[in-house]
Amino acid sequence: MRAVEWNPAGPAVRVVDQRRLPASVEHRDLLSVQEVALGIADMTVRGAPTIGAVAAFGLALAAHASNASTLPLLWDDITRARLILQSSRPTAVNLVWALDRVTRRVIESRPTSVAAAKAALLTEAQRLADDEVARNQRIGRHGAALLADGDTVIHHCHTGGLAAVDYGTALGIIRTAHEQGKRVHVLVDETRPRLQGARLTAWELQQLGIAHEIITDSAAGHFLQRGEVQAVLVGADRVAANGDVANKVGTYMLALAAAANHVPFYSAFPTSTVDPECADGASVPIEERPADEVLHLSIDGQPIAPAGSRARNPAFDVTPHELITALVTEAGVHRPPFGPALLQATIEGRPA
Amino acid sequence: MRAVEWNPAGPAVRVVDQRRLPASVEHRDLLSVQEVALGIADMTVRGAPTIGAVAAFGLALAAHASNASTLPLLWDDITRARLILQSSRPTAVNLVWALDRVTRRVIESRPTSVAAAKAALLTEAQRLADDEVARNQRIGRHGAALLADGDTVIHHCHTGGLAAVDYGTALGIIRTAHEQGKRVHVLVDETRPRLQGARLTAWELQQLGIAHEIITDSAAGHFLQRGEVQAVLVGADRVAANGDVANKVGTYMLALAAAANHVPFYSAFPTSTVDPECADGASVPIEERPADEVLHLSIDGQPIAPAGSRARNPAFDVTPHELITALVTEAGVHRPPFGPALLQATIEGRPA
Repeated sequence: MRAVEWNPAGPAVRVVDQRRLPASVEHRDLLSVQEVALGIADMTVRGAPTIGAVAAFGLALAAHASNASTLPLLWDDITRARLILQSSRPTAVNLVWALDRVTRRVIESRPTSVAAAKAALLTEAQRLADDEVARNQRIGRHGAALLADGDTVIHHCHTGGLAAVDYGTALGIIRTAHEQGKRVHVLVDETRPRLQGARLTAWELQQLGIAHEIITDSAAGHFLQRGEVQAVLVGADRVAANGDVANKVGTYMLALAAAANHVPFYSAFPTSTVDPECADGASVPIEERPADEVLHLSIDGQPIAPAGSRARNPAFDVTPHELITALVTEAGVHRPPFGPALLQATIEGRPA
Repeated sequence: MRAVEWNPAGPAVRVVDQRRLPASVEHRDLLSVQEVALGIADMTVRGAPTIGAVAAFGLALAAHASNASTLPLLWDDITRARLILQSSRPTAVNLVWALDRVTRRVIESRPTSVAAAKAALLTEAQRLADDEVARNQRIGRHGAALLADGDTVIHHCHTGGLAAVDYGTALGIIRTAHEQGKRVHVLVDETRPRLQGARLTAWELQQLGIAHEIITDSAAGHFLQRGEVQAVLVGADRVAANGDVANKVGTYMLALAAAANHVPFYSAFPTSTVDPECADGASVPIEERPADEVLHLSIDGQPIAPAGSRARNPAFDVTPHELITALVTEAGVHRPPFGPALLQATIEGRPA
């Protein structure tokens, strides 16, 4: 099942509504670029590679809806759509990367008509989505070599198929190891406030038949300290040029606990997640989401705090590269020093 | 408002039902030693000093209910009650300490009749509860010196009046600083799975008019890393002789994040929380509570994970003394090396 597809009948960007899981698997058709941007912002769709692909299809949708009679007028509409999509969420760089790649490739193909440009945008969005899945499978193969039969791993947030178009990044590594016949046991960080671990990761692991137990994010340190964990695996939302990883809030504390207990800590992502323009993690914009996600349980809106309470809700944090054992991309397993090799892989991963 | 009191009308041990807050403040009368033990186990009452006092009143209740006609028969009933109370929760040592203290003092008072022994048990339970409050106020005065005007502090779990008979330990320090006119801003760890921070700490801070915001436990690292926090304050459920602190799960990861960012980390508790028989944290029994607390939101039972999911749920973890800047007891502020000074304070804190 793909997290995002083109629905020609709409036309629409058809997505799996990640807010409804695990209660039900529901598809939603996003019928305009505004609906696509809102679906990214309200986390109907989430996961860095998935929101990149959703944005790319959103651009194709905007082009389809355009009444432009000439190519320059079409590019005006596409540029407006880009601005709308680009501002939907600030931290994951894949969103900007996907919009850049699709736009650049269509320009380079020198379409000679409005119809040809519209068709090329859709083709490139589809190709981008397909490429992400192929990359995930390569990430899985590279990363699975890091896991041994019988390992217990801690996984934070959700990095499975729904987060990465299909197959998954960090969870794809666990999946590949499992498919290779290794017995892997997963301690699933529930991942407050939106519970992506308890809701999505546990659901995907259940579908795949991989042994797992859910833990609170705070309990990870206890299991690491007791020697019950052989590896920690997370994804990434934006990776700086020096290897600092911006990822779901809680990743940093998990990395500290892994390092303190000499347990290897891996972050897995396609090279589209690397931002060569961010020198280090301090320059990654960290989204602060609505306080309501903390004060109410987002799945049903039940309040958990006294009426009138306030909250702070950073959605991501930065894990300094010094705490990371290796980064895993489709190009391979990168060990410190990350900088040059990571940028080289990133350049290679970006077709001209 | 006291977390626990003797209700002569029952007679009963009257407690504030901490599971109902912040929705409502409800008192419950626990009418037998079995009800008292259950109230501790199901966390109607929680917080190390509070459960010590509740257990002490539970012993007085068992004595009151006894039909024993002689002192030896009464001690048989009291011994049975002790075993029931003692097994209600394993980690907080205050429970055993309170039962020991009350029993020993009554024995030492050499009661000459069953009635006199029953009366002495109640007197000693009341004295223990009163002593805890007096100690908390001393902890508050010692600890408040560690906070400066304008400080932002992170607080984990709940250590306020309800957790410590009255006034509070770590939260008592914040309260004292506030009463001294210092502006203290609290980032309240919500404290999964039972949300004692979001439910109880936020409620007490609201009552006291102390500025605060609720954060997920995972977000603490982000705020520490950004330099927005000047101190971290927690309580303790059992402190080993070397200063290792067993406390609510998540404390260890918080201490790691504080240490990594050179932010002082303080644990505050009455000396009744020190267990001289535990050489270090590894020998503290860590309670594993029901998986349902993680899989369902305990306040309303709403499921958050796929049906059939399993969970692990350690209620506490151990913070090695190396990560702790200072321990605060009623005897003062103890800095490393903790061992000898801490044991000396503990001995002084235990009247013969």
